[in-house]
Amino acid sequence: MNEVPPYSASSVEVVRLPRGETEPDEIAVEEPLEIRVGGHPIAVTMRTPGHDEELALGFLRSEGIAAVSAHPTADFAANVIDVEVDGDVDLDRLSRNFYTSSSCGVCGKGALEAVAVEAARVESELVLPGELVAVLPDRLREAQPAFAATGGLHATGLFDSSGELLVVREDVGRHNAMDKVVGWAFGEGLLPLSDKVLCVSGRLSFELVQKAAVAGCPVVAAVGAPSTLAVDLARDRGVTLCGFVRGGRVNVYSEPQRIG
Amino acid sequence: MNEVPPYSASSVEVVRLPRGETEPDEIAVEEPLEIRVGGHPIAVTMRTPGHDEELALGFLRSEGIAAVSAHPTADFAANVIDVEVDGDVDLDRLSRNFYTSSSCGVCGKGALEAVAVEAARVESELVLPGELVAVLPDRLREAQPAFAATGGLHATGLFDSSGELLVVREDVGRHNAMDKVVGWAFGEGLLPLSDKVLCVSGRLSFELVQKAAVAGCPVVAAVGAPSTLAVDLARDRGVTLCGFVRGGRVNVYSEPQRIG
Repeated sequence: MNEVPPYSASSVEVVRLPRGETEPDEIAVEEPLEIRVGGHPIAVTMRTPGHDEELALGFLRSEGIAAVSAHPTADFAANVIDVEVDGDVDLDRLSRNFYTSSSCGVCGKGALEAVAVEAARVESELVLPGELVAVLPDRLREAQPAFAATGGLHATGLFDSSGELLVVREDVGRHNAMDKVVGWAFGEGLLPLSDKVLCVSGRLSFELVQKAAVAGCPVVAAVGAPSTLAVDLARDRGVTLCGFVRGGRVNVYSEPQRIG
Repeated sequence: MNEVPPYSASSVEVVRLPRGETEPDEIAVEEPLEIRVGGHPIAVTMRTPGHDEELALGFLRSEGIAAVSAHPTADFAANVIDVEVDGDVDLDRLSRNFYTSSSCGVCGKGALEAVAVEAARVESELVLPGELVAVLPDRLREAQPAFAATGGLHATGLFDSSGELLVVREDVGRHNAMDKVVGWAFGEGLLPLSDKVLCVSGRLSFELVQKAAVAGCPVVAAVGAPSTLAVDLARDRGVTLCGFVRGGRVNVYSEPQRIG
């Protein structure tokens, strides 16, 4: 019962500040899983591999569907799973209810290729002192009025290159907090965010890095840990990813030349 | 820039253990927002109200769509927003890419009615000592092998009425961790979970309470804070919701008669 699930953690190279040494770091694996019902694609969820059959069964049963068994569609690629259901299911209604891949599937493609929005590589001459990045989460927290009251809100903050907070937005959904900041920046005529820094209060998922990359932001900092797919996307799109920013320390997972 | 967004926090009654007093508590507001493009429903996101125009613009721009302006569709109900875009957009492809309401909209309905899966009220004679609930997060954390390595994974644990851990599952997505546990329980013939407790490592969103209610689980405990919609749904479905379970303390937000 207490086994370590396969593929749940992976080692990546990280530059640890303030010491500046490059070391391996264990991060959580994030990959897409396409769930099919009777061969028909229904949903794509970003998940940590392992116990995929349970995930597919639990997901569909939580939606009130009598899913009876689930099987990976290929031995070598566990990113697509097919579920057998008991009785008739309105597949069209079901597939419109979830985040669904517009392409024919995830199997046989690289994960990034399958789920990433098209975006150019982020180009920026921005260089920031590590000491400046290290204080951004504290400045973000001080500007979170509703978190102080509830303890239940994520935040995204947008900072300029001197570390001044331009805007903060809070939300129960971390992706919503970032969408609000990007929407604010659009309204202010600040896109692309080529000389700005985004700082988030929690963990760094693939989805957050994608939103930052599409907005053209060269540096993303987070209090929490990144996932594998977040690091992969940041490296592919040229975004500097800083994680575990706390207590004066910063882990730089990609493009460390921007942190001077 | 540093204003408190409207409607971001709300006061609810909570029973605080071990003292047992009923007091008001501020929790984060969670409500659905339906995003439309030119009147066509595209997506429903569970968000904290406030800055909805920014959210809709940022959401669509993050998907590479040239959204130019966003307006609430009615003065009295800010749960539907319509976005004007620049140029043609493949609405059918777009709407298949997101969590989309199968009904015609959220506006004019109660939030619960609009987004909740049909489920009977949870019936259970289960009563648990508050001291037992208080130790569940520690037992969950001890059984999280991949979190210890990465610091980047959510967990859900299923416990019996004596506080014994039956299974734990970890994932980058909190909803996935709970789906895996429900799927495991289905495979073991344990559904409905009428005499069990679910414990989660983070915050309690609407979605997690919905999954627990559909699985028939009478008690859900969490290390973190619940949202308003999580509490509303728990009260509606007869689920005992325990939040901020840390340091021997437990906040009971609904059905407190089960915590003896």
